[in-house]
Amino acid sequence: MAHYGYFNGTVAPVDQLTIGLTDLGLLRGYGLFDYFLTYNGRPFQWDWYWERFQNSASRMHLPLPLGKDETYAILLNLIEQSVGTDMAIRFVMTGGYSADSISIERPNLLILTEAIHPVPPMQYEKGIKVILDEYVREMAEVKSTDYKRVILMAEAIRAAGASDLLYQKGGEISELSRSNFFLVKGNRLITPNRHILHGITRRTVMQLAQGDYKVEERPVLLSELYDANEAFTTSSTKKVLPITQIGELVIGDGHVGPVSRSLLYQFNELIKDW
Amino acid sequence: MAHYGYFNGTVAPVDQLTIGLTDLGLLRGYGLFDYFLTYNGRPFQWDWYWERFQNSASRMHLPLPLGKDETYAILLNLIEQSVGTDMAIRFVMTGGYSADSISIERPNLLILTEAIHPVPPMQYEKGIKVILDEYVREMAEVKSTDYKRVILMAEAIRAAGASDLLYQKGGEISELSRSNFFLVKGNRLITPNRHILHGITRRTVMQLAQGDYKVEERPVLLSELYDANEAFTTSSTKKVLPITQIGELVIGDGHVGPVSRSLLYQFNELIKDW
Repeated sequence: MAHYGYFNGTVAPVDQLTIGLTDLGLLRGYGLFDYFLTYNGRPFQWDWYWERFQNSASRMHLPLPLGKDETYAILLNLIEQSVGTDMAIRFVMTGGYSADSISIERPNLLILTEAIHPVPPMQYEKGIKVILDEYVREMAEVKSTDYKRVILMAEAIRAAGASDLLYQKGGEISELSRSNFFLVKGNRLITPNRHILHGITRRTVMQLAQGDYKVEERPVLLSELYDANEAFTTSSTKKVLPITQIGELVIGDGHVGPVSRSLLYQFNELIKDW
Repeated sequence: MAHYGYFNGTVAPVDQLTIGLTDLGLLRGYGLFDYFLTYNGRPFQWDWYWERFQNSASRMHLPLPLGKDETYAILLNLIEQSVGTDMAIRFVMTGGYSADSISIERPNLLILTEAIHPVPPMQYEKGIKVILDEYVREMAEVKSTDYKRVILMAEAIRAAGASDLLYQKGGEISELSRSNFFLVKGNRLITPNRHILHGITRRTVMQLAQGDYKVEERPVLLSELYDANEAFTTSSTKKVLPITQIGELVIGDGHVGPVSRSLLYQFNELIKDW
């Protein structure tokens, strides 16, 4: 069974869709995207994702060729035509085809449905290890297609027996390569507020946490890792994924903590009824 | 008359070639390229371009699917099939199609022939204006496809009546958005040596200049612009293009100087007999 996609008005199985070679996303890295899942066949947090996609497009000076309702109708059509279970949706918008390989004429918009690549259950039980990387994403608030860094570092991540990178610059932590970062200290949840992509799962988790924890959005320093009880990362695919080791540093007692566990439970409850 | 291209073994007119949507160059900005011209039907400085392309590929951990001689044979075939005059050649190599949108399996290699977009002759007569931009390219020595910055700044460049950006960070000049930077002071040619792409035209010009000028490759500070006699930029398309204004600062007497003029002349003599 195929996953369907949409490209500039055409709907077809994704593996039958192609793009011309003069696209500025391909030639010049001029593209942005967004990525979310469906639960019970419905796009999760659609309003928030659309708002962010719109914001990224505007920050990259690309006019959206479709309105929100029109896009939603295309989405539902793609979901219906694709395989029956829940899936991932990827929006990609590029600078479009360019006669001189540099000037924008008309953006190209792709909407793809994809299989979800869930986190292995074991990682929720044991937590993951990440390694520190001295790096900060350019225009971190914009979900541009620039994910060179983590692909470039794939071998280093593997060699360290780690799952991902934790970016820091000058001792300030920002985010993981494709997900946000949280520390737990007592009943406080602490998460960086700058040089990050403002994750929708991050936002969802902060909302879920509001009653039970004090949520602090602020710059977070490497030195704060030493007395943290727990750490976790959030993304649409990872949900609430515990981090038990950062480089050689074991976080808390090295086991998945009760706060991470409880927030993951609440998140799973939320999506169950979405 | 068509320009021909090569994509993973297929040769066809460029506008008939397409690429699948799961390519990591498109989805993740994971790509590198190179770009050069033919003169008298022969690729200019082929040995040097191939060396650089190889180096970029290796820095991005992408194994080249073709050897040098094999690639050259494809090149000559594309040149022969394409329109009769001289043309531009663009190599693009990406992380290839990826099942999970992040892991590299097998790179995609494209070789495109394109029309040359020459600099308007007036710009060689009057020189160009550039504006300063606080920026440095990530992995500047690698010719990655990441040219977001200049596309993002297109409106600012236009609004300033300028032609391009001159990147500086913390007062240190690196390069223009797609070309290298030189200052002339007396009989000295000064050009930045770090945070730059090592241009083939830059290298060619330094070689041409060797007998007549003292060439200094070293960090160049913004403060050095004030007592420069001339400034110019080099690239395969721009050759030796005089810069007469940087932001509000007029360089030298504001006219194209004798050194820029002489080096452009020598460069044009070299390519005439290539």
